[in-house]
Amino acid sequence: MKTRFLPAALVAMVLGSALRADEGMWLYNNPPREQIRAKYGFEITDAWLDHLMKSSVRFNSGGSGSFVSEDGLVISNHHVGADALQKVSTEKKNLLKDGFHARTTAEEIKCVDLELNVLQSIEDVTARVNAAVSASASPEESFRARRRATAEIEKESMAKTGLRSDVVTLYQGGAYHLYRFKKYTDVRLVFAPEQQIAFFGGDPDNFEYPRFDLDICLFRVYEDGKPVTVAHHLAWSAKGAAEGELTFVSGHPGRTDRLLTMAELAYQRDVTYPYTLERLKRREVLLNAWSQRSEENARRSRDELFGIQNSRKARDGGHAGLYDPVLMKSKANAESAFRARLGGRAEFAQARDAYDTIAEVQKTVGAIALRYRLLEAEHGFSCDSYAIARTLLRAGDEYPKPNGDRLKEFGDAGKESLELDLFSDKPIPEDLETLNLADSLTFLAEKLGATDPLVERVLAGKSPRARAQELVRTTRIREVAFRKKLYAGGADAIRGAGDPMVEVARLVDGEARELRRRFEAAEETRKQAHAAIARARFALDGASSYPDATFTLRLSYGVVKGYEEDGRKVPAETTIAGLYARAEAQHFKPPFDLPDRWIKKRSALNPATPFNFVGTHDIIGGNSGSPVVNRAGEFVGIIFDGNLQSLVLDFAYDDVQARSLSVHSSGILESLRKVYGATALADELTKGRRKR
Amino acid sequence: MKTRFLPAALVAMVLGSALRADEGMWLYNNPPREQIRAKYGFEITDAWLDHLMKSSVRFNSGGSGSFVSEDGLVISNHHVGADALQKVSTEKKNLLKDGFHARTTAEEIKCVDLELNVLQSIEDVTARVNAAVSASASPEESFRARRRATAEIEKESMAKTGLRSDVVTLYQGGAYHLYRFKKYTDVRLVFAPEQQIAFFGGDPDNFEYPRFDLDICLFRVYEDGKPVTVAHHLAWSAKGAAEGELTFVSGHPGRTDRLLTMAELAYQRDVTYPYTLERLKRREVLLNAWSQRSEENARRSRDELFGIQNSRKARDGGHAGLYDPVLMKSKANAESAFRARLGGRAEFAQARDAYDTIAEVQKTVGAIALRYRLLEAEHGFSCDSYAIARTLLRAGDEYPKPNGDRLKEFGDAGKESLELDLFSDKPIPEDLETLNLADSLTFLAEKLGATDPLVERVLAGKSPRARAQELVRTTRIREVAFRKKLYAGGADAIRGAGDPMVEVARLVDGEARELRRRFEAAEETRKQAHAAIARARFALDGASSYPDATFTLRLSYGVVKGYEEDGRKVPAETTIAGLYARAEAQHFKPPFDLPDRWIKKRSALNPATPFNFVGTHDIIGGNSGSPVVNRAGEFVGIIFDGNLQSLVLDFAYDDVQARSLSVHSSGILESLRKVYGATALADELTKGRRKR
Repeated sequence: MKTRFLPAALVAMVLGSALRADEGMWLYNNPPREQIRAKYGFEITDAWLDHLMKSSVRFNSGGSGSFVSEDGLVISNHHVGADALQKVSTEKKNLLKDGFHARTTAEEIKCVDLELNVLQSIEDVTARVNAAVSASASPEESFRARRRATAEIEKESMAKTGLRSDVVTLYQGGAYHLYRFKKYTDVRLVFAPEQQIAFFGGDPDNFEYPRFDLDICLFRVYEDGKPVTVAHHLAWSAKGAAEGELTFVSGHPGRTDRLLTMAELAYQRDVTYPYTLERLKRREVLLNAWSQRSEENARRSRDELFGIQNSRKARDGGHAGLYDPVLMKSKANAESAFRARLGGRAEFAQARDAYDTIAEVQKTVGAIALRYRLLEAEHGFSCDSYAIARTLLRAGDEYPKPNGDRLKEFGDAGKESLELDLFSDKPIPEDLETLNLADSLTFLAEKLGATDPLVERVLAGKSPRARAQELVRTTRIREVAFRKKLYAGGADAIRGAGDPMVEVARLVDGEARELRRRFEAAEETRKQAHAAIARARFALDGASSYPDATFTLRLSYGVVKGYEEDGRKVPAETTIAGLYARAEAQHFKPPFDLPDRWIKKRSALNPATPFNFVGTHDIIGGNSGSPVVNRAGEFVGIIFDGNLQSLVLDFAYDDVQARSLSVHSSGILESLRKVYGATALADELTKGRRKR
Repeated sequence: MKTRFLPAALVAMVLGSALRADEGMWLYNNPPREQIRAKYGFEITDAWLDHLMKSSVRFNSGGSGSFVSEDGLVISNHHVGADALQKVSTEKKNLLKDGFHARTTAEEIKCVDLELNVLQSIEDVTARVNAAVSASASPEESFRARRRATAEIEKESMAKTGLRSDVVTLYQGGAYHLYRFKKYTDVRLVFAPEQQIAFFGGDPDNFEYPRFDLDICLFRVYEDGKPVTVAHHLAWSAKGAAEGELTFVSGHPGRTDRLLTMAELAYQRDVTYPYTLERLKRREVLLNAWSQRSEENARRSRDELFGIQNSRKARDGGHAGLYDPVLMKSKANAESAFRARLGGRAEFAQARDAYDTIAEVQKTVGAIALRYRLLEAEHGFSCDSYAIARTLLRAGDEYPKPNGDRLKEFGDAGKESLELDLFSDKPIPEDLETLNLADSLTFLAEKLGATDPLVERVLAGKSPRARAQELVRTTRIREVAFRKKLYAGGADAIRGAGDPMVEVARLVDGEARELRRRFEAAEETRKQAHAAIARARFALDGASSYPDATFTLRLSYGVVKGYEEDGRKVPAETTIAGLYARAEAQHFKPPFDLPDRWIKKRSALNPATPFNFVGTHDIIGGNSGSPVVNRAGEFVGIIFDGNLQSLVLDFAYDDVQARSLSVHSSGILESLRKVYGATALADELTKGRRKR
């Protein structure tokens, strides 16, 4: 990765000028109308925006998608659908690897515990949330008061509208908005290509460009056992977007850290990233070695291993950005410049203090972070059985409390989703559970020390491996019926069952909750400090900015555009011919092998068909599966990755080399028609409805 | 891995009885004559021992081997030869992967910087080394005095005998012996199978059993351009050893930690292993991802990646042993029992104090260990260019000093070997260097902090990646002629050249040397404490014990024997039929694919031929390539691995499940004759000489 670029956002910030690059993950209730009018002469109307919003789909498993037919057809990435594909696969029928194609709706397969959300409206509730907090409240009281207020707002909204209602925190605490979603839980699998072509080039080519991936997956949303009819879906553009054309991305970027202070960035660089990368690499080695022992192991760990490798590569790239003195210097200059603008004005007193407050919070959090991650974030107990056991344990303790006093994930608004997840009958293989638990108990003992009293109690005089074997073998938590019984019976039934995995969770729970309490109080202080900075920024610059990404729906824009690297011109588009050329250059060896179908159908395909393309859109993880649309709101492609240079977008936007990567709408149609003979499906895409 | 066994050594120690299991890595000047006579009725004669010693070969690259013909033919493992195979491979001719077979001596290929040693004699020089140290000397003075004494002994011996002479430390400082080796530096490659069959099952099957690996490699030793005629070589047993038969292993176990105190074991568990494993896993992920980008990358990183995966698996296994409360409890009991036996007797005062001294040393070392590893052990600069640059820098500074005052590796006795290594023209690819250096500089910055003054000076205001690119691009250290010129010119020439990589090494060298000084002083104190314990042990139990492994020649013994695992009987031998069955079960997918030759020649092979076998021999890493011989001293097999359960042998012997793994002499012959058509070579093995 080149590191010599000066991030565009910083140039803009340093110069104190308006944003001129294609920067921003914009809120739907604060779109960049003026920037786009000024730079591209295009007018974003309310109707255009509403249509795109209601055509956009959030995958609760982490990712984005869109409706592409009025009959509830949803397109996303193969790697977003991977979790769902994995869960409906068996040893004999590996849909994740071999793909799937339902030729009729009758053949469509219901996914296990997959929930899709479609945003219907946004309401600013900042005033009401803040009003709940008295000026004299301690951070902990303040956190609880805010928690109660948001739980109340969510519950009220759900009762009134019947919609899933989430109060989201924006600008690191500068604003609170109520997001209302239509929720779909009957989602069926329609089409997936082979993983070989969806993820052609595998981990080695991940985040690289040029690329040649058919990273798509199609689902259909049902209600009452029938495909839904949706009022909004994206029309299909068969020809896609031309180089230089203005296009939009509508999706759910998961997390950015652009508004962090220098103290926070240093903490990310010195603590968070090293820890996260150490853990990712450890898990990658563990699962990679295990998956190579047999094909069945490989099948069962494929999805998780891909996720880990993907995160590891993304994090390694982000970490390199934090070690780039040019980037860090620019951020430091921007922070100094902004602090200088706060001057001595009385109304900015809180904003001025905020930087020191945040640095203090960083120390407080740093002191408990390791135990928090191991115990509360379950890094010391990385397996499904433990996660389920703890959810059960806490459900028993939390649900009897008033809604507003519960831990956030046990709020009434989220109860349905929690139960969907808790009673999922996805397979939980005993051997993989043991492998994961043994390794994470070893990690726990390494990090806290073998003689730590809690570690000793958890291990109960056994080695991590022996203890993991024992716990996984004796727990009944993998039986869905058992979980349902305990859940229905509440705290007493749960204690009475004496299940070993639940009892280990109980052993940990006291300290885990205490760590969370302290962590949340610190985060509340941090949030208030950031809110003060955000208010000062609003006062000085107006609402001409966007908040950091938070897995809420955002609008980005940009143009289809190549770039230069090491003196070579990297073209904006790749073609189907390029796919075959890359496979040949690698002698068709995995992960550069092609599915049989693609070998056989080669001559039938038009080699000049565009396959993947890059653009200047401001995206990040979570945007996977986002539709790319043109001015007419037509679907021209689907985001599936960013290039290596885009990995620093976590901290600052850049349009010199950083690029979004998409599958081209033409490439999708050509593949469906010529390789898969999926005529009806291709017709549904181009006509916007099923043939009846 | 099962963890429920009680290590046999501990049973013996706890019971205070003589060793009854097949335990021990015995010194050639203190062989277990009585144990073997008592248990097996076999008499080890001096002649028998001398013949086996002089037939045994040490690979300086790390590993063992043996002469198997009077014409200098040496057999070792493919994975021991891998480094040599890698160095003579090119992009077009990949000998490591595709194998090699010289049908005539003219076709034999000279290896790059490979040195073989054959032990000729052992002399106990403990008294002379200890006499050099005055009672009042500080640890640092004591270390230097001992260093001078050993350098003197080595130089004297070399001058007298012309043999490579190394003074080795045994019993953690309890004894010093002078080892004299015949040294061979003209070593030529004769035969290697394809890596697919040598390492069939790859990393997934590594340390597993049953196994099916033809892990062999044949070399021939030359002098004056002609094959040497050796006085000692092992006769070949075509039928191999029967189940239950007494056999011996003669080889160079690298390191065991059986005599460590509990304080040292806890340090290993809590500090050393976690650090080492973190680094290994990080490097495994780095090289694995890189090697998958292209076949050429894979070729160039194959050997190193294998080494890392092998170490990682071995260390994970060892670490699990340290987390096994049964093993740790037994070690603790044995330590308490021994300390109790020291009683109040005046002559054991030093031994009694030694345990606290060692615990203190552990703290001293712990305080500097991280910086020591990063700076002195070069973990922050993991690439060949840096290693060469520092050797050059130090050569310039060290060689002008008197022999006894130099850093150990610059002693006169080792000069020839150092130059062989320093002027090696093995390829050093720029891209791989940059990858390794960028990652290790990032590791350095992570571990010491980005704002550490030394880190800042090393990075010179650049990101680790940018700095690595710059250093690797601008250094001339990869040119052998440049190195020779600087080496000849000495310190002034080296400084004058101003090579950027050398100058980075210089930047680090001050602190690195200071850390080493403190580290060596602490280790000297530790050594003296262990020596006191060793003396007490000799006084109480006589010489009936063996020292921890130190890469010196050792004799182990045991029987060919299967074991039980999870209620299944694991047989002592596998066969060629089993190889094909395992490949079929895995659908011949890598790493379970077979070379074309093995597919084509299947029907020609006798499927019942024994291929691999297991035994109770006490071995550890470094024993790879060791011959297994019968009572008649005939070659019946070659050690290539241990099973998973053997990984705790680092800390304690076990014969319940821990097993050595060998390739069977019959399987070797069958493969050479029927698969490779290597008739002349097979005849040379069975006749003990080349056909003339």
